[in-house]
Formats: sequence, C-alpha cells, structure tokens
Amino acid sequence: MASKSMHDLFVDQLQDAYSAETQLTKALPQMAAAATNPELKAGFQQHLTETEGQVRRLEQVAKELNVKLTSMMGMSAANTCEAMKGLIAEGQEVMGLGLDGDVQDAGLIAAAQKVEHYEIAMYGCLCTWAKRLGYSTAQTLLHQTLEEEKRTDEKLTRLAESQVNRQAAAK
Amino acid sequence: MASKSMHDLFVDQLQDAYSAETQLTKALPQMAAAATNPELKAGFQQHLTETEGQVRRLEQVAKELNVKLTSMMGMSAANTCEAMKGLIAEGQEVMGLGLDGDVQDAGLIAAAQKVEHYEIAMYGCLCTWAKRLGYSTAQTLLHQTLEEEKRTDEKLTRLAESQVNRQAAAK
Repeated sequence: MASKSMHDLFVDQLQDAYSAETQLTKALPQMAAAATNPELKAGFQQHLTETEGQVRRLEQVAKELNVKLTSMMGMSAANTCEAMKGLIAEGQEVMGLGLDGDVQDAGLIAAAQKVEHYEIAMYGCLCTWAKRLGYSTAQTLLHQTLEEEKRTDEKLTRLAESQVNRQAAAK
Repeated sequence: MASKSMHDLFVDQLQDAYSAETQLTKALPQMAAAATNPELKAGFQQHLTETEGQVRRLEQVAKELNVKLTSMMGMSAANTCEAMKGLIAEGQEVMGLGLDGDVQDAGLIAAAQKVEHYEIAMYGCLCTWAKRLGYSTAQTLLHQTLEEEKRTDEKLTRLAESQVNRQAAAK
C-alpha cells in the first residue's frame, strides 16, 4: 500500500522549486542579453538578483526542515524540474525566431510571464502546504518569494502594455 | 536584419497553444484515472471536455486568420510546446511517487494548477496581442478560453482548501 505522506510531497516539490530556480539563474542572463528595451533588460537583470535570493531562501527552508536539496541540473531526471526546462526552451525558441527587436521583446515578456505564472502556482501550493503542515518559518520564507513573483509578473504586464506591445504591433 | 513581425509571433504562440492543448487532452484522462477524490476525478473529466472545446476554438482562430496549425505531437520540435511537455511530465512524476491517495490528490491539484497558470499567462498574452493586431474575432475566442482557465484554477484552489489538503495533511 502507498504510504508516502504530505511531508514527502512537500519535500519533492521543494526540490522541484530548487531545480526550477537554479535553472532560471542560468537562463535570465541570456534573456537580459537578448532584450532590446532597456527597461526589460534591466528588469531581467534585477530578477536574476531576486532569483539568486530565492534560491538561498529555498536552502533556508530545507535547512529548517533538515532536508537536502540538490542543484545538479540535467544529471538526474528525478531532481530536475521538467516544466522549467520546457519553459526555458520556449524562451530560447523565441530568441531563435529571427524576430524584429521590439517583437522579440514582446515574445520574451510572454516567455517570462509563463515562468512567473508557473512559479506563482508552485509557491502558492508550497505556502498552503507549509501552513497545513505547521512549517511556519518555511511558510513565511515561501510567502516572501510568492509575493516577489507576483510583483515581477505585474511589472512585466505594465512594461508590455505601456511600451513593448505598442512598438511591436507597429512592426 | 531581423524582420519578422508581431503577426508571426502571434501565429508562433498560437501553434504553441494548440500543441499545449492537444497534449493536455491526452494527459487529463490519466489524471482523472489517478485521482481518488470523486470531485477531483469529475473535475478532470469536465476539464477534458472543456479542453477539447478550447482546441476547436484555436482551430477557429487559425481559420479566421488563414493560418495552418499542426497537432503532430513530438514529431517536430518546432511545433511542440516544450513547456506543456514538461508540465505533463511533472504530473506523471507525482503519480509515480507512491503517495497515499489523498496526498497524491494534493500533488495532482498542484500539477494541474501549474498547467492552468501556464495557460492563463499564454492566453493572457495571446488576447493582448490579438487586440493590438486588431484580430477582434480571435480576441473574443481567446478571451473565452482565458476565462475558462481562470475558473478551473479557482475551482482547484477551492477543492484543495475545502477537502484535499486537510485530508492529505492528516496522513
């Protein structure tokens, strides 16, 4: 009979989040390099710093719960976040389409918003589970990241609507 | 010099959405079969019907814009939505963890909410671009799907909070 508990699911998804964020720290510099809009470029660079902080926060959560996370990317399927791998591949596809600069920026924003929405769902679940399991320090830390991801998503929407999409549609 | 336009990006992402939804029609029956909570099982079955409708809506959008979509899955990397492939792989991972039934349900809800959030970002961008490009019929159709995805996500949150997470945390 199956017997693995909610704690095991929580740890599995924490590992997934750790893989997702470490993968993202490798992808964001490429997205920043590809962006032509200066605000978008700066936004990706800023989000890289934020993401590095989010990686450290996950390490704190793991320490708190006495579990071990691994950042070995692509080495072990079990520890790799497949969804983030696919999300990053999509961003790279956009960069390979040969789009006009402004249009490519619109595509990069879409790719980034898919990443943010994925992470909002991920941290949303982790927060809810941490609360259910009584992991209050973990809950506080995960909630800080959740709020950061929401703010990043909103910032991307504003940038798309105030500048990038208008310029892109004119091409 | 790069010259591809916003229309090209729109069509590229429409193809991506088409691949994503057709992949999902294959994954949802597995998720429904694995769910133990009757409401969750029924929810996955209902969302399958909805997803089939969303596939048809994307076909209508393509017809309207006189573009061709392909649902060949895994046959051509260019036409496969890599993110959805990864998202589905994550759901399958949850099913392979050997979790207790209620705990697995919580994991399936998390996997499904990641899918919904991904799709909300995807249709959000497509709607905004359709509006910018003056594709009003496309915009209306895509907006219908966007609203459906949001409702599905809310339903999953309610189910997780009212039943599944409580039962799972007790294991």
